[in-house]
Amino acid sequence: MDASEEILRKTLAEKQSAIEAHGNAVRALKAAGAAKPEIDAAIESLNGLKLEKTSIERQLQAAIGGGDSSLNREAFRQAVVNTLERRLFYIPSFKIYRGVAGLYDYGPPGCAVKSNVLAFWRQHFVLEENMLEVDCPCVTPEVVLKASGHVDKFTDLMVKDEKTGTCYRADHLLKDFCNEKLQKDLSISTEKAAELKHILAVLDDLSVEELGAKLKEYGITAPDTKNPLSDPYPFNLMFQTSIGPSGLSPGYMRPETAQGIFVNFKDLYYYNGNKLPFAAAQIGQAFRNEISPRQGLLRVREFTLAEIEHFVDPENKFHPKFSEVVNLEFLMFPREEQMSGHSAKKIPLGEAVSRGIVNNETLGYFIGRVYLFLTCLGIDKDRLRFRQHLANEMAHYAADCWDAEIECSYGWIECVGIADRSAYDLRAHSEKSGVPLVAQEKFPEPREVEKLVINPVKKELGLAFKGNQKMVVEALEAMNEKEALEMKAALESKGESEFNVCTLGKNVTIKKNMVAISKEIKKEHQRVFTPSVIEPSFGIGRIIFCLFEHSFYTRLSKAGDEQLNVFRFPPLVAPIKCTVFPLVQQQHYEEVAKVISQSLTTAGISHKIDITGTSIGKRYARTDELGVPFAITVDSTSSVTIRERDSKDQVRVSVEEAASVVKEVTDGWRTWTDVWSTFPHHSSGSVEADE
Amino acid sequence: MDASEEILRKTLAEKQSAIEAHGNAVRALKAAGAAKPEIDAAIESLNGLKLEKTSIERQLQAAIGGGDSSLNREAFRQAVVNTLERRLFYIPSFKIYRGVAGLYDYGPPGCAVKSNVLAFWRQHFVLEENMLEVDCPCVTPEVVLKASGHVDKFTDLMVKDEKTGTCYRADHLLKDFCNEKLQKDLSISTEKAAELKHILAVLDDLSVEELGAKLKEYGITAPDTKNPLSDPYPFNLMFQTSIGPSGLSPGYMRPETAQGIFVNFKDLYYYNGNKLPFAAAQIGQAFRNEISPRQGLLRVREFTLAEIEHFVDPENKFHPKFSEVVNLEFLMFPREEQMSGHSAKKIPLGEAVSRGIVNNETLGYFIGRVYLFLTCLGIDKDRLRFRQHLANEMAHYAADCWDAEIECSYGWIECVGIADRSAYDLRAHSEKSGVPLVAQEKFPEPREVEKLVINPVKKELGLAFKGNQKMVVEALEAMNEKEALEMKAALESKGESEFNVCTLGKNVTIKKNMVAISKEIKKEHQRVFTPSVIEPSFGIGRIIFCLFEHSFYTRLSKAGDEQLNVFRFPPLVAPIKCTVFPLVQQQHYEEVAKVISQSLTTAGISHKIDITGTSIGKRYARTDELGVPFAITVDSTSSVTIRERDSKDQVRVSVEEAASVVKEVTDGWRTWTDVWSTFPHHSSGSVEADE
Repeated sequence: MDASEEILRKTLAEKQSAIEAHGNAVRALKAAGAAKPEIDAAIESLNGLKLEKTSIERQLQAAIGGGDSSLNREAFRQAVVNTLERRLFYIPSFKIYRGVAGLYDYGPPGCAVKSNVLAFWRQHFVLEENMLEVDCPCVTPEVVLKASGHVDKFTDLMVKDEKTGTCYRADHLLKDFCNEKLQKDLSISTEKAAELKHILAVLDDLSVEELGAKLKEYGITAPDTKNPLSDPYPFNLMFQTSIGPSGLSPGYMRPETAQGIFVNFKDLYYYNGNKLPFAAAQIGQAFRNEISPRQGLLRVREFTLAEIEHFVDPENKFHPKFSEVVNLEFLMFPREEQMSGHSAKKIPLGEAVSRGIVNNETLGYFIGRVYLFLTCLGIDKDRLRFRQHLANEMAHYAADCWDAEIECSYGWIECVGIADRSAYDLRAHSEKSGVPLVAQEKFPEPREVEKLVINPVKKELGLAFKGNQKMVVEALEAMNEKEALEMKAALESKGESEFNVCTLGKNVTIKKNMVAISKEIKKEHQRVFTPSVIEPSFGIGRIIFCLFEHSFYTRLSKAGDEQLNVFRFPPLVAPIKCTVFPLVQQQHYEEVAKVISQSLTTAGISHKIDITGTSIGKRYARTDELGVPFAITVDSTSSVTIRERDSKDQVRVSVEEAASVVKEVTDGWRTWTDVWSTFPHHSSGSVEADE
Repeated sequence: MDASEEILRKTLAEKQSAIEAHGNAVRALKAAGAAKPEIDAAIESLNGLKLEKTSIERQLQAAIGGGDSSLNREAFRQAVVNTLERRLFYIPSFKIYRGVAGLYDYGPPGCAVKSNVLAFWRQHFVLEENMLEVDCPCVTPEVVLKASGHVDKFTDLMVKDEKTGTCYRADHLLKDFCNEKLQKDLSISTEKAAELKHILAVLDDLSVEELGAKLKEYGITAPDTKNPLSDPYPFNLMFQTSIGPSGLSPGYMRPETAQGIFVNFKDLYYYNGNKLPFAAAQIGQAFRNEISPRQGLLRVREFTLAEIEHFVDPENKFHPKFSEVVNLEFLMFPREEQMSGHSAKKIPLGEAVSRGIVNNETLGYFIGRVYLFLTCLGIDKDRLRFRQHLANEMAHYAADCWDAEIECSYGWIECVGIADRSAYDLRAHSEKSGVPLVAQEKFPEPREVEKLVINPVKKELGLAFKGNQKMVVEALEAMNEKEALEMKAALESKGESEFNVCTLGKNVTIKKNMVAISKEIKKEHQRVFTPSVIEPSFGIGRIIFCLFEHSFYTRLSKAGDEQLNVFRFPPLVAPIKCTVFPLVQQQHYEEVAKVISQSLTTAGISHKIDITGTSIGKRYARTDELGVPFAITVDSTSSVTIRERDSKDQVRVSVEEAASVVKEVTDGWRTWTDVWSTFPHHSSGSVEADE
């Protein structure tokens, strides 16, 4: 708990006790018929205490952030979301049928932003790193998700309203209860506050029994009806279906795209010339049948994932291009800092790897590339941090795991997970399918390796154990090095050894003539191993939502009577790159506008002509709200102006050059600063008049 | 039936009869102890007849195409598919678990081809036509697909093996039976052949009873076991699932993307400034739980659709850009030509529309744009035809419908459907949701319209019908113009009129004082109507499969000892645009290769470096098989060669220019012919040596 918050809670409790004591004293004075001046003085002192209490309450409220700042955050979000929904960036799906929670449509500008983000992802990751992109189906047979563990473990704990049957996520109810108490109930003790904070910290680790006990202990009921709740029980989050007409082949809509890559490892490794490392990538839909979706685009039932599986030799996690990101410096939040209550701090990436904060170079390289990807899109680098998973958050097999978290109005949100999952996934599918998913390292020269050799003597074992011979042989061959060496020692010293054959469920006596155990030097030509996989996994919808918030701002209209909304999207992600406006509705202007529009189409620049008679200021405002970075205004038949959205600066260029100038700044070959210093400036004459 | 086939079948039957008669005659001669020369002459004549029969059989076989040509087609397909699977263009999904019928993964080159096709689709349709692209979820609540008709009607007829329970598509079994008979059984009569052909023609129209009767009549059994089959029954092809944890909200994986657009019509119309026409577009996954998928990529359980819904005023289906396609001329197959047994023929598009073969300009415009799209991708224009739906194929509401069919080894395959669906879909969702999905046309000046006005006199009706008054009023108001005018006439002539109130289930007598019926001139300021929708719908996987086949060819290796595979993809769709080969493994060549590779990455050109020591000829062959159009070979540190895949021509350019020349030809700003005439030619010296 924050130190100041703890002090404030204590002071508040003391002040409360003092007020009670003082109140009693006042009542005692009145009962004893004390003199009026004496009573008045006591009351005045009591009122003073009450005022002090109110002031402490206000300070506490500010310290725990439940007051003005969270209200501001919600108001800000509402302003952004209203703009987004009104301009059709996204809208609840199936709205005319009253929608379905957790399903959203991207309308035209949102869809364009999304496809720009994905195109840049392809350029930044797939093309730049020569990754093998694949495209696998969403419908997945049960066996695959059984092997991956999703059928058994991909669950959330659910409680039901015992009367209406409405379902809730058990951890959400407990979390809401704790947050509500902590933020709104200023009277709780320091100890109670610490207890609630502890619950929030370990929420993900609570067992079904612990969670149930806490719900009972706090008397938590159904939020809508206040009815009692059932005990929590696990609910599998996969959408289930049936493949083919027989009804006998269960299938699921994939909860992630990664499994499609793992099951293809063998073919992809071959495609890559049987060489490591290599990365495969996939963009596609994934599905989670959330119990009760909330937080808009952040927690949805269907979403686009972009995932990379980088396969690497576990003994060699160096990365040839690490030097390209080694000097990047950004907010990192290592495990230790979180445990000791500090906050995220800037660490040079090279240092984070060399000091062992980040497990290895390849993981570090991807952290750096993700940082570059997100900030190029327009994510504010001061509201982006890389948070390391705590030991209790990480799967047991994972070597290390970092989340790119972006701060938005909902708090810090995990948008990209970058995990070193070791050999877990490939091993799981090898075992389930019986197909070895391994890599080979051929040695330049054969290596001599000392190997333990166990040779059961089948004839002797047959004589001694008859029908059980096979199981004894198998058990002998399955001994590990330690067991075998112990047996070897026993046979050499005592001539025999007691040996437990678990398939027989009993001990047998092995004699010296029944098995030969020796160490031999063998020549090996290659090493066969299961590769480790480093997995950066991108929640595209979450990144886009944070991008919307980070790009949004308002500014006063020129007349000063209105707040106008603007999205400061970089051209890379802007849904439309350019608008073309004839200044007034005149045929020769409209013809010029059409010529420019045709050139823009040929150049592949998405744009919009607006030939409505609306004032140019209104038309600028309309497209600023869509985040369109450039506007071409046709105010003559020989030259036009190009306006940049955020500075509102305008230059004058010839009709012939207009499209190519816009293409150059849009494609990033030229900066606006360069354009501004090259072309004559257009001062706010008639064009700016009503802006 | 084809005329020559009919003649041949008849001749064959006659020849068979002649042989039988002659055989009898020979036997009779022998029995009668005729002289040897006489018998020999008769046998010789019989043998002559048999030879003639064999010759006719061969002609018939050729005429019905079941012989060599279909074998060639299958061999060709096998060659293409082997190459595609070996080079990981696509592979059966979940192969290590023995796969799932009808599910395929696109591996790296296939995935790249697919994303190139989709990017071009966006450029050619969405950007070029300023369409509103949206992105809606696959998971769809039942109500939406109830309204669209899919819950009730999206079925195929299925039969089950009565012993094993294996499921088959009933129509496929009947189709296979008919084709098998027609192609392999040369002895069937002309009448029988005609009957089987008729069944093939009306297969899609057969009712469940008719289909069941035919299966019984022909004694068709389960193909794998020869067990008896169940009667056919409908099986819904949608993958069903359940939305949310309650189990009470059924949902489906969408069978098409179109519905997501229809339910958003109101918002999209508003986004477009309440103006028609406009088009919305969507690219996304769709799902069909096929009973028994076959034909590889052509019939799958999950596939990518790209759909356009062009909304238009039903009274104005002209298209402003029709002039841009009016002179296109390509294979069209109108309804009449099909009915009269002719084949497809080239018709100028303008003529097809002006002669009314194609229903309207907008439909014609899209047919033209689809032709341009497919041929730009590399579809052979001589194996592409636009076939009009026959009356029995078309939904009752459709105004006209054309399929872009591409000929591949499976025959003519529907790859794009272009349908004028009139107002059907919007009306269906209006009715189900209660939200009017309509457009308005504001008149420049109010128009005077004669309107029928029915004014029930509630007081009199109340006196006469008491509690039933409300239902009588509603029935009166619901009369159509004809009914109302008849009542008006009856009231004026007889003073009363018998009137059926269906909600009461009886007739009542309406008197003159109970209702006023008149025609009034009203001023109308606008027209409210449900727009028509013209829907081009693209099966991306089918287009890609046909593209693979149309692009594939083989050529002899230089040594003449091997057939090499080549895909002649245009740069637009080639999975990788360029390879970079150091001629030999030398460090300074490899460094130049890396510099060029970096320039290509910056230019956004997907490419591959191959620094293996394999001979240059082998490396060319390897990338020809991936359809890579250009190869840069580094054979010096100052200049390099660029080779074009199909001509194998090479030019020499400087290291600095290499990447930009490749970019120019790849992006289509420059032709290879132009490059060839600009730069010095590189004659086959050492580089070509082992090609």
